[in-house]
Amino acid sequence: MFDLACQEPPDMTDSLSAFTARHIGPRDHDVADMLSTIGLSSLDELASAAVPDAIRSADALDIEAAPSEHVVVKELRGIADRNKVLTSMIGLGYYGTIVPPVIARNVLENPAWYTAYTPYQPEISQGRLEALLNFQTVVTDLTGLDLAGSSLLDEATAAAEAMTLMRRVSKAPAGAVLLVDEAVFPQTLGVIRTRAVPLGLPVVVADLGGVDDVDALRAAAGDQDVFGVIVQYPDGAGRLRDHRALAAAAHEHGALVTAAADLLALTLATPPGEWGADIAVGTSQRFGVPMGFGGPHAGYMSVHSGLERNLPGRLVGVSVDEVGARAYRLALQTREQHIRREKATSNICTAQVLLAVMASMYAVYHGPRGLEAIATVVHSHAIALADALRAGGVEVGDEPFFDTLTVHVPGRADAVVDAALKQGVNLWRANADTVLISVDETTDEADLAAVATAFGVNRPVVTLAAPAWDTDLQRTSEYLTHPVFNSHHSETAMLRYLRRLADRDFALDRGMIPLGSCTMKLNATTEMLAVTWPEFSNLHPFVPADQTRGSREIVEQLSAWLCEVTGYDAVSLQPNAGSQGEFAGLLAIAAYHRANGDTERNVMLIPSSAHGTNAASAVMAGMKVIVVKTDSITGNVDMDDLKAKVEDHREHLAGIMVTYPSTHGVYEATITDLCAMVHDAGGQVYVDGANLNALMGLARPGRFGADVSHLNLHKTFCIPHGGGGPGVGPVAVRAHLAPHLPNHPLDAEAGPESGVGPVSAAPFGSASILPISWAYVRLMGGAGLKRSTEIAVLNANYIAARLREHYPVLYTGNRDLVAHECILDVRGITKDTGVTVDDVAKRLIDYGFHAPTMSFPVAGTLMVEPTESEDKGELDRFCDAMIAIKGEIDQVAAGTVEAADSVLRHAPHTAESLTQEWTASYDRAAAVFPPGVDPTAKYWAPVRRIDGAFGDRNLVCSCPPPEAFES
Amino acid sequence: MFDLACQEPPDMTDSLSAFTARHIGPRDHDVADMLSTIGLSSLDELASAAVPDAIRSADALDIEAAPSEHVVVKELRGIADRNKVLTSMIGLGYYGTIVPPVIARNVLENPAWYTAYTPYQPEISQGRLEALLNFQTVVTDLTGLDLAGSSLLDEATAAAEAMTLMRRVSKAPAGAVLLVDEAVFPQTLGVIRTRAVPLGLPVVVADLGGVDDVDALRAAAGDQDVFGVIVQYPDGAGRLRDHRALAAAAHEHGALVTAAADLLALTLATPPGEWGADIAVGTSQRFGVPMGFGGPHAGYMSVHSGLERNLPGRLVGVSVDEVGARAYRLALQTREQHIRREKATSNICTAQVLLAVMASMYAVYHGPRGLEAIATVVHSHAIALADALRAGGVEVGDEPFFDTLTVHVPGRADAVVDAALKQGVNLWRANADTVLISVDETTDEADLAAVATAFGVNRPVVTLAAPAWDTDLQRTSEYLTHPVFNSHHSETAMLRYLRRLADRDFALDRGMIPLGSCTMKLNATTEMLAVTWPEFSNLHPFVPADQTRGSREIVEQLSAWLCEVTGYDAVSLQPNAGSQGEFAGLLAIAAYHRANGDTERNVMLIPSSAHGTNAASAVMAGMKVIVVKTDSITGNVDMDDLKAKVEDHREHLAGIMVTYPSTHGVYEATITDLCAMVHDAGGQVYVDGANLNALMGLARPGRFGADVSHLNLHKTFCIPHGGGGPGVGPVAVRAHLAPHLPNHPLDAEAGPESGVGPVSAAPFGSASILPISWAYVRLMGGAGLKRSTEIAVLNANYIAARLREHYPVLYTGNRDLVAHECILDVRGITKDTGVTVDDVAKRLIDYGFHAPTMSFPVAGTLMVEPTESEDKGELDRFCDAMIAIKGEIDQVAAGTVEAADSVLRHAPHTAESLTQEWTASYDRAAAVFPPGVDPTAKYWAPVRRIDGAFGDRNLVCSCPPPEAFES
Repeated sequence: MFDLACQEPPDMTDSLSAFTARHIGPRDHDVADMLSTIGLSSLDELASAAVPDAIRSADALDIEAAPSEHVVVKELRGIADRNKVLTSMIGLGYYGTIVPPVIARNVLENPAWYTAYTPYQPEISQGRLEALLNFQTVVTDLTGLDLAGSSLLDEATAAAEAMTLMRRVSKAPAGAVLLVDEAVFPQTLGVIRTRAVPLGLPVVVADLGGVDDVDALRAAAGDQDVFGVIVQYPDGAGRLRDHRALAAAAHEHGALVTAAADLLALTLATPPGEWGADIAVGTSQRFGVPMGFGGPHAGYMSVHSGLERNLPGRLVGVSVDEVGARAYRLALQTREQHIRREKATSNICTAQVLLAVMASMYAVYHGPRGLEAIATVVHSHAIALADALRAGGVEVGDEPFFDTLTVHVPGRADAVVDAALKQGVNLWRANADTVLISVDETTDEADLAAVATAFGVNRPVVTLAAPAWDTDLQRTSEYLTHPVFNSHHSETAMLRYLRRLADRDFALDRGMIPLGSCTMKLNATTEMLAVTWPEFSNLHPFVPADQTRGSREIVEQLSAWLCEVTGYDAVSLQPNAGSQGEFAGLLAIAAYHRANGDTERNVMLIPSSAHGTNAASAVMAGMKVIVVKTDSITGNVDMDDLKAKVEDHREHLAGIMVTYPSTHGVYEATITDLCAMVHDAGGQVYVDGANLNALMGLARPGRFGADVSHLNLHKTFCIPHGGGGPGVGPVAVRAHLAPHLPNHPLDAEAGPESGVGPVSAAPFGSASILPISWAYVRLMGGAGLKRSTEIAVLNANYIAARLREHYPVLYTGNRDLVAHECILDVRGITKDTGVTVDDVAKRLIDYGFHAPTMSFPVAGTLMVEPTESEDKGELDRFCDAMIAIKGEIDQVAAGTVEAADSVLRHAPHTAESLTQEWTASYDRAAAVFPPGVDPTAKYWAPVRRIDGAFGDRNLVCSCPPPEAFES
Repeated sequence: MFDLACQEPPDMTDSLSAFTARHIGPRDHDVADMLSTIGLSSLDELASAAVPDAIRSADALDIEAAPSEHVVVKELRGIADRNKVLTSMIGLGYYGTIVPPVIARNVLENPAWYTAYTPYQPEISQGRLEALLNFQTVVTDLTGLDLAGSSLLDEATAAAEAMTLMRRVSKAPAGAVLLVDEAVFPQTLGVIRTRAVPLGLPVVVADLGGVDDVDALRAAAGDQDVFGVIVQYPDGAGRLRDHRALAAAAHEHGALVTAAADLLALTLATPPGEWGADIAVGTSQRFGVPMGFGGPHAGYMSVHSGLERNLPGRLVGVSVDEVGARAYRLALQTREQHIRREKATSNICTAQVLLAVMASMYAVYHGPRGLEAIATVVHSHAIALADALRAGGVEVGDEPFFDTLTVHVPGRADAVVDAALKQGVNLWRANADTVLISVDETTDEADLAAVATAFGVNRPVVTLAAPAWDTDLQRTSEYLTHPVFNSHHSETAMLRYLRRLADRDFALDRGMIPLGSCTMKLNATTEMLAVTWPEFSNLHPFVPADQTRGSREIVEQLSAWLCEVTGYDAVSLQPNAGSQGEFAGLLAIAAYHRANGDTERNVMLIPSSAHGTNAASAVMAGMKVIVVKTDSITGNVDMDDLKAKVEDHREHLAGIMVTYPSTHGVYEATITDLCAMVHDAGGQVYVDGANLNALMGLARPGRFGADVSHLNLHKTFCIPHGGGGPGVGPVAVRAHLAPHLPNHPLDAEAGPESGVGPVSAAPFGSASILPISWAYVRLMGGAGLKRSTEIAVLNANYIAARLREHYPVLYTGNRDLVAHECILDVRGITKDTGVTVDDVAKRLIDYGFHAPTMSFPVAGTLMVEPTESEDKGELDRFCDAMIAIKGEIDQVAAGTVEAADSVLRHAPHTAESLTQEWTASYDRAAAVFPPGVDPTAKYWAPVRRIDGAFGDRNLVCSCPPPEAFES
């Protein structure tokens, strides 16, 4: 009982853990004040009024809180000790790497980077946008292609995206196949298959080594047409093969070619873009991102010019701001799911920004010569080991290799792997006769000697500078010639570059980021600690399970807690983004219907207010999307229209996808009726878990009628947004769907044998960041989670109450209450004054705020989600700013100033603008130091309002030359 | 050989470690360019030309570099594993504490805090000055006294400083004694004795428990007059005693009273200021600073009004800037050694800023109610343990206690301590019959049960809320009522407060800090890593030696390397600041003479250009300072004057203190003659190691004639300055002085039995940060250290060469070369134009630089030390800024603008100034975006030029009320 008292919440209820008062912003006396502003007397009254009785949980969550952060850290240490960190030379896309300490400390462990949001407000995201542009440049330079996105989720999902991209672009007839080389990594093939099935894309696996003309290509495809080819480069057996003839044949045939390529190898080997690949995919993990028992790290995709509008995921491009200064922002957003919905190229909405930033900085730090040196050492070590093994009479594959040896030990593979294990080294048993060994940046000669010993070769392994390949595969083209990769090589210079970029951005460590639907709450330090412990970060995902007991314990316990919170029966933590969880959930529904013999159930109802991702995921899962109307007055699902659509599609109804509370931030009272109606028609109910932060401890979707949800650990469960990723999107289901969760070809514990296959490369997805959510739940306990929800709802209603008279609150529920977010309607203002929602959002930057969500779910509105972590002081500062902005709008309304000349339209204002000739209708102080802004603690946007369209018309997606900045 | 190539220095000589290219700024091609600017062809030529042949080392340093940072981290892990971290309930001034993770990550592990310099340029140090003002407020509030300094080195040295303060202030006659209660911590008594001896202050130790009138006081003092009294509160036996009568008696007698008080206890107990103490001293370690095997942590001293001008060390005060805005800066600097030299109140020049910041933030984070709650739990645990022991038949002292129990176990103390050790708990064996047990914030009921078991008491220890003391010692006064201690209690709020303060400051993570004599070089992340590992940070300094084998290995190896670098024979790492190393070195000289029967040798020659600390330390060591002239043309020691002074004082000559290279940044060619002259007269040569960064690998003081030096690990050996501490100041000596190094009463391995006693509280001083310097040496190796020196000298000469035509370089040596720093003479400019050195320094802020050292060692000049870590780009940026400033000065010289109206005089300019009416003679852009400043990466000073004198006239040294800011 006393640890509780240690941590200051003297006036908090005893049942709450000490940490609860650290996580939650408002103090108890603030809560009382805020309730009175809303006109309520207690948190319980608020919950009772806001949340429909029909769904309220009767029971408290059965999750015990740890007494203190100190105890949780001790517990995590204990769990960490149950992992065994050996040397892993398994390869298969995961490699030991040395995280430069200056990057680990100043990016991965720095809240200025990890608490940032997706750069939708580019004016206050220039730092990470520059880092992502660097990432794109690394990928395009190394792969020899023209354009790269700012990261994908992992190599396997990137390969699956390449499959659909090739299908979209190829003119091959329907029914044409995807031809995959048999030496593609097994998990990549697994994900490709999972993703191909619902789309009806046939996948043929063959040895493409000898394919050198169209006939051979068609023969390899079983005499079928081919829309795309995927090869691994170097391949899964370590071989570096020349695919020029294969690529030429594919092109002649009308198919596209994707290379899943290793970025480090590409510093030495001819890049895919130079031998004919149209697309390159892969991972940047070995560029200074720990293996992390599978993730997260940044996958990549690059394409040649002409395919850019087909790229999935985020793309950073260069544009200009209001005064013509160069500025970065997301390019070609019209491709993305939030705009194109069911017509999108992909359902991907998260990138892996934090990890892409790390990988890009690894390249910035080492530079081209440093990367080449690392690759040369790796290659030389591999050569040395091969030489030693051969000298010892062991047969090693003789094709050119980069870092991976295929060693033939007929009948002895198990024995060799065991012997290596005894030396503390994990090797990969490819089959009973074959062992694979991958050398990486961390390998030293002692490791090589240990490996040799495991093969019965007891001789020193002497590494000499390895000769280059004497083949056409030797890279000759330059890369990373841009100054950014050649300037920051001392640690001092690197440190300052990181600081300079971080300072350009606005993250949670500076102020509130009130993003509706995105739940930018505290990412507590204690939650983050274990992420960088070697016991969690240095595990290869495919090591024997007994080396990862600690991480598996995290998976099991967190899964159980998520079931308790949601009322579901089973959880898969494999999906490494919300979109992937959604996809997995829809696959489960489809598989369930199929298992019941309902092979025709393929219609998914989706309300018009839904996240675009819902529709995009449904399409990926092979479903037909039927849109259900929402009521224009209340914003709720139009139950009459729903009823009609259910009737129309009764025979084919797969289910419905709804968000709860709704994307309008309202607890719809009809939710139980909705569930019943769909169930009655044989459909399943998918509840999008994006808004679970308004339910935890109050209501459980698995108990009020839903069959499946994905959760967002990066929203509700405190994994930081990282500037736009990583996300973790577990899928949670009721028991009848559990047999249809994802599984994994290389890990029997990762899902049911009857499962739908892998949806991510790694068995447990982004396993290394699961301790964050584990720690959050353990720190809060059930009572703390419930309190979080109550305060999140209180904070949103407090904002609604304070702002209602200045901006209409668009949709509300019982007693005019909202849930955990509220929509401020700017449409009337726009109509009356010309001042747009953009103007308000950008003006908020001048006031020191990140804007709320703009124009989602309703165009012309702002959706505000304060979360429980913002304290009353910050909420008031935000409300005061919004009210002051309303005052500025009123001047326009009064005709005192034209909208086009107003301080709103010209926001945000930079420091530089103050020193230039001042012709504005307002004065300098009004521009940059509006009420409430402390001039000594001002966040300065580095650029003015960015012209996005200019950048899309003049697409530049890699580092522009320095002289370009001089114009 | 290959790890080297991994890390990018493709063009560095092979003998250099990979890390060398990360530590050193200029790339090899830059080095060639810079040499050509200076007119030399190689680094070797530079060294040969600059460093006198007579002192050049013939041999390379025999220190092997590790191949990579990765390997060094592994080695440190291995060393860490040789420490055993048990639960320590030893007390004696060191307690387990929980560092709030948000503070650990965002202060202790954040370069924005740890790479900052001492706040001599207050305009760009407002963040840490505010944090230090908070610290001062914590100390004054808790101790109930009026003024506190911004930290001292540790509790023991603070007590010694209190002794000298009391002696200065008391009107007691010469020969009066210091009366110390026998229950003062043993290490505190040890340091008091070490410091009293050279000053001839008699120290009497007695039980002062019953002293309640003047007669009893004098009786306790052996019927001698008393100038000061020191008690521990609660005392070393854990007793909380009422000292009102003692204090009254002392005052009546004309003595002052110092309480060495525990800050946590003071949240519950009547503060010393309320029971009559004049001075309080102690440590803030248990406010969230790890024990660290002894340090560093922030000692404190507070005094009642009237004693402020006698305070040793740094004091932060409130003042105003040019436009009347509130601003913080160091107050009453005229007290300090760098101004008052041999008349200073103390030789202290370093504080423990980083640790004081942490402690202050612990109070900000917990607030008064949180601190009280922690103290209450600690006290309740102690009560519970006492009750359990008594119930088990064990005798526990029955006087009121806070956290420490005196347990009487006649004849069984060793057995009990052993039994506890078996339970994983360290207790303190006070004597054969007595065991002390201290409860702290980390103690839980399992620990209490383990302790009870060690006493043979096997019963659960049940903690209940403890009753308050029912004595007059119950605190009734409020504390920490200022809003800063009552506003940042959620982690989000705390994080933002830390960021906001950090952003106000300029540290090495933003740009160069070219401080002459202070060596602001890279503090590499790898060097910093081990500091926060529990194996180094969670050790009590008095645990059995076998629990600290790893830390002791660091001590031994680092000592050996320091000997190799300096040419000395023995090193003590105990001094926790350069000033303390100096003092220890002088004590060694004094003891050596005494041991030789030369009891009259007490004259120390000190050149007029010396650091003020030299003189202050010499006085503390009981010596008489005789100043030797420096030549006005060359700046060198005037050898004729030296010869004369040596002759004058031949019989009494103790030695000479010189800095090498000189404080003028010159390698004086006469150094060997100087050494010989002093030796011939029977004196010892003390070489101040402040400038060792210009010698490493090139010359060794221990071989070219010096007998003793102190080193600055926080300068030459990469311990970060932490915003003004911690420092580490080892003393290194030749063999004949080794028997006279410091030792420690509680650790036989900490120094020679014949030593001079302890100079710091802990046996190995600031042991937890020694891994930083260990890692630096290990990463660089001998060749890398030599290269560091060469590049440091190159960088300084490059700056001198570029700036010479704009600012005269005051002193140079052979071929007009300087050493590792250069003095730019502004006196002529001031004379001609009125533009002062202050104007130039403050104008540099507008250009994005921390100013060089101002007016030391020569008034009216700037001393620039770039260090080896600054790259050519940054050096050029600095030179360009200085040249541009010269252009601004030229406008004044040309009469175009008055100095008083110039951009120089009004520097620095804030962002806020841009929005105000602009009446200046220059435009806004010229003010804030002068050439070379990127408006998107501008460092903005939060205040304009500060009026220091105003603050000294209106002394405010604790947090001003918020309404004070409104004026």
